[in-house]
Amino acid sequence: MVTQDQVSKAISELLVPGVGRSLTDLNLLKSIEVADGKVTVTVANAAIGEGTQDWIRTKIATSVEKIADGLEITTEFVDAKPTDVNQVGKVIAIMSGKGGVGKSLITGLSAVALARQGKSVGILDADITGPSIPKMFGMKTRPISSKSGILPIISHLGIEVMSINLMLENEHDAVIWRGPVISGAIKQFWEEVLWGKLDYLLVDLPPGTADAPLTVMQTLPVNGVIIVSTPQELASMVVRKAVTMAQKLDKPVLGVVENMSYLEIPETGKRMELFGKSRGQEVADAANAPLLATLPLDPKLAALCDAGEVEKYSTPEFDAFSKAFTEIALKSLKSNHG
Amino acid sequence: MVTQDQVSKAISELLVPGVGRSLTDLNLLKSIEVADGKVTVTVANAAIGEGTQDWIRTKIATSVEKIADGLEITTEFVDAKPTDVNQVGKVIAIMSGKGGVGKSLITGLSAVALARQGKSVGILDADITGPSIPKMFGMKTRPISSKSGILPIISHLGIEVMSINLMLENEHDAVIWRGPVISGAIKQFWEEVLWGKLDYLLVDLPPGTADAPLTVMQTLPVNGVIIVSTPQELASMVVRKAVTMAQKLDKPVLGVVENMSYLEIPETGKRMELFGKSRGQEVADAANAPLLATLPLDPKLAALCDAGEVEKYSTPEFDAFSKAFTEIALKSLKSNHG
Repeated sequence: MVTQDQVSKAISELLVPGVGRSLTDLNLLKSIEVADGKVTVTVANAAIGEGTQDWIRTKIATSVEKIADGLEITTEFVDAKPTDVNQVGKVIAIMSGKGGVGKSLITGLSAVALARQGKSVGILDADITGPSIPKMFGMKTRPISSKSGILPIISHLGIEVMSINLMLENEHDAVIWRGPVISGAIKQFWEEVLWGKLDYLLVDLPPGTADAPLTVMQTLPVNGVIIVSTPQELASMVVRKAVTMAQKLDKPVLGVVENMSYLEIPETGKRMELFGKSRGQEVADAANAPLLATLPLDPKLAALCDAGEVEKYSTPEFDAFSKAFTEIALKSLKSNHG
Repeated sequence: MVTQDQVSKAISELLVPGVGRSLTDLNLLKSIEVADGKVTVTVANAAIGEGTQDWIRTKIATSVEKIADGLEITTEFVDAKPTDVNQVGKVIAIMSGKGGVGKSLITGLSAVALARQGKSVGILDADITGPSIPKMFGMKTRPISSKSGILPIISHLGIEVMSINLMLENEHDAVIWRGPVISGAIKQFWEEVLWGKLDYLLVDLPPGTADAPLTVMQTLPVNGVIIVSTPQELASMVVRKAVTMAQKLDKPVLGVVENMSYLEIPETGKRMELFGKSRGQEVADAANAPLLATLPLDPKLAALCDAGEVEKYSTPEFDAFSKAFTEIALKSLKSNHG
């Protein structure tokens, strides 16, 4: 007779429409019973609307029939909320007191680095009033939502993304919200999105030290913080405010990334310090954390982001950053789930 | 006998300590009476502490004695709040949905442009969680405050500045505030700071379209908005959210400034488009406003800002921007006070 494992394997090949991950990866598969000539599959219906339930029921029947010919196949749905099934290993917030230092970019690149290592990664775009993650990954699809939750959008590399910009009719629409509403949206992204099983959730914080970063730090189980800065003294001053905030809230600073450290002039190959001498080590010392990388301002990267192709980026500098970041992300953090 | 005008002129040479502007410029001189062998000067005591009152009384006596020998000179103080005496001609908000596009820099340069034209200018730094105006102007002094108000700090060119960073013990301290507290601070900067008579008050908004920009737009009599963008499509998308916000709140967009449009390579003199093709005209068209300037990324300017010497900046590009900006600021706005 067919085994549980065989049924599980057959089901794991189904990718849930709208999110493109399996029931197993989304942690929706509750149980498989094989007994008395019957196969019973129980699925949590978190963030799964009725149409998708029908699809899942049909697909499970077709896939299992092939290996368990003649058995009666039943799929049962049990009520669940995303918070019942989400299993997020480590939450890392990407922070910077100052805007425009490339915090979203570093979030995107960090996710790419982890995904290339085979890790399952999500990005929660907490920059509610200036969201730039979807654009960078070329995402235009509206997320599917039902009364039991919202499905994230998935990138080419399999990175799950949730951002307010995915929810707007028009990407130029302004989100004119007061602090408490913004905090509410971030909580919703954490509690009502079906993240499923993730090794890492990266949170792209808005600049500053006001509501949104505060809400993330206080609501989500943030395991560590990455600080992004640029060489300009003015920027590093404001960035150090973010360091102070992380320290006050008892969140370990995992590392500092200095962005836009220099520009390589194409014609001459010379490095030009656009914003003055590097201050990354200084900021890292103040944060009592390692300087993970000093990245150049790279016009090719800006172009890739505009084209929605950040996942294609590959340079020696990025590889060095990837290595330093994934090492720290893998080693220095204890997972929330064992 | 001495005339009112002569007394007024003698008094106008006194610069109030801590702010360095005259009683007339601060609009604190309520009346001058010359009658019956007596000179009576009435001064509003908005934001003036007791020590400063004594200073003013003594200085008025000494200055007026010289021209009105033998007359009895009395200075009377009447209770007043900054809102009773402030006379701000035009309020211009500098806005940008995206951080790090150089919004604070454009605010600073706009103030310098107006000050060089002989206008009296103030800057209200509404970027409460990422304030960078004081650094740029090299301001380190703590503002003097009394129970009736706060005195702004004045720059070399005479620009009045109020910023949360002037209030902190340590410039790296983080302001971890929830939205309503931030809104409260901005209202306080408007209502409790003795701006006096100003032709222009420029408001440096934080990035985004949340509490702080919303409070400014709804609390202050904003006459117009300057939008700052950069060529990157990602930035211009977020900036267009700011345009949408200004339009929804019925604030006229006076013009668009594109910053970091290009870099001039020192060795070759060539222009390099760091963030892709200029999109300034596109943003300006969306805002239905003129493109005031496309400014280069200038490492010299970054260095001046770090050194607190933004007021020394002078390049042909800046002069062109100054001309365009002051023209629009002078012509297209009706003053709040006749």
